[in-house]
Amino acid sequence: MTIEINTPILQFNDRLAAENRSLLSTNRVFMLDVLASPGAGKTSLILAAIEALRTTYRIAVIEGDVASDVDAQRVKQANIEAVQINTNGACHLEAAMVARALEALDLAALDLIIVENVGNLVCPTEFDIGSNCRIVVASVPEGDDKPLKYPAIFSIVEAVLVNKIDTLPVFDFDLRAFTDVIFGINPTAPVMALSAKTGEGLNVFTDWLVQRINQDV
Amino acid sequence: MTIEINTPILQFNDRLAAENRSLLSTNRVFMLDVLASPGAGKTSLILAAIEALRTTYRIAVIEGDVASDVDAQRVKQANIEAVQINTNGACHLEAAMVARALEALDLAALDLIIVENVGNLVCPTEFDIGSNCRIVVASVPEGDDKPLKYPAIFSIVEAVLVNKIDTLPVFDFDLRAFTDVIFGINPTAPVMALSAKTGEGLNVFTDWLVQRINQDV
Repeated sequence: MTIEINTPILQFNDRLAAENRSLLSTNRVFMLDVLASPGAGKTSLILAAIEALRTTYRIAVIEGDVASDVDAQRVKQANIEAVQINTNGACHLEAAMVARALEALDLAALDLIIVENVGNLVCPTEFDIGSNCRIVVASVPEGDDKPLKYPAIFSIVEAVLVNKIDTLPVFDFDLRAFTDVIFGINPTAPVMALSAKTGEGLNVFTDWLVQRINQDV
Repeated sequence: MTIEINTPILQFNDRLAAENRSLLSTNRVFMLDVLASPGAGKTSLILAAIEALRTTYRIAVIEGDVASDVDAQRVKQANIEAVQINTNGACHLEAAMVARALEALDLAALDLIIVENVGNLVCPTEFDIGSNCRIVVASVPEGDDKPLKYPAIFSIVEAVLVNKIDTLPVFDFDLRAFTDVIFGINPTAPVMALSAKTGEGLNVFTDWLVQRINQDV
């Protein structure tokens, strides 16, 4: 039953994702899709990356949440344009939702769009939104076993970030064990440990992102 | 489209959930459904609660994960029977999956079944598995804004736990603000702050659970 239902939905989504990607390419805009579980620190990481990159790129943010606009408000406080998508219960962003958000942005005046997907390590995996690149943000307090339990999302991304490494002394998190599991399921994805709060390791990620943007735009 | 598809699936699930509940009632077994985002510390909390309650109740655990059996292994190391459900990609447990797990347990020899649902603050909300009671576990490192972003799951549970309070000095978490939001969306649900790691506050939860079990069994 699931297969019969999912197939046409995913085909429809993939077609709209391709349209988003084409629209972005025409406007020479790079779109990054940021995945994570709730509370991994996506918004803080996005804001820290924006501070590092805002002199290089014209940046906007698309915020995906089941409800509320607290994240978009935080982004706007940094004087960055933000479009909030409320999924009203849905557990992931879909290409159609992002298409409407793109309509609300002046793409000719942008270089980089960062999409904060709904906090969820399962459902966003299958839904291409038309981004150039997907990354996942894990965090130290969640524990080092998350790639074992949610292998699909860790296998489809181009990079894995481990946020909140300033709290490594407080938690029992084995970064080497975590990295070994990632290497097993996604050998080409770099694992970048950082703290959005302290800024430690952030430049490794932003340097990687600049290189990645240069590949496509 | 979503409405047409979801309605029969949910009706089918509700029917199986009622069958699970009836089976458990006949055997005088209480089933607790534990919801949380990935890494909130559900397994540690369940193990700590089991230590406090294992002289009072005969307990088994049903572990729901997208993949792996690391949680069930942890439970078995505590000499507690554990059934692992791998959803193979699905983002929540359904009543049909739990029905098969119940078949694997000797219900006549049990008083309490604790179900660890898939780590996800969205999708399990709509799927009754036939439990007597549902609780959600938040945690300090996730931040105090989770009830704003995922109101549905916080509104349908009977109690809200805030785990990892031993890390309050490390994180910017406003317990009063968190509790105020819960009170707004779910006025009758107690908010219980605790640490599964240190045991602080655990007895408030286990005392509450014993009272709750006594209502039904």
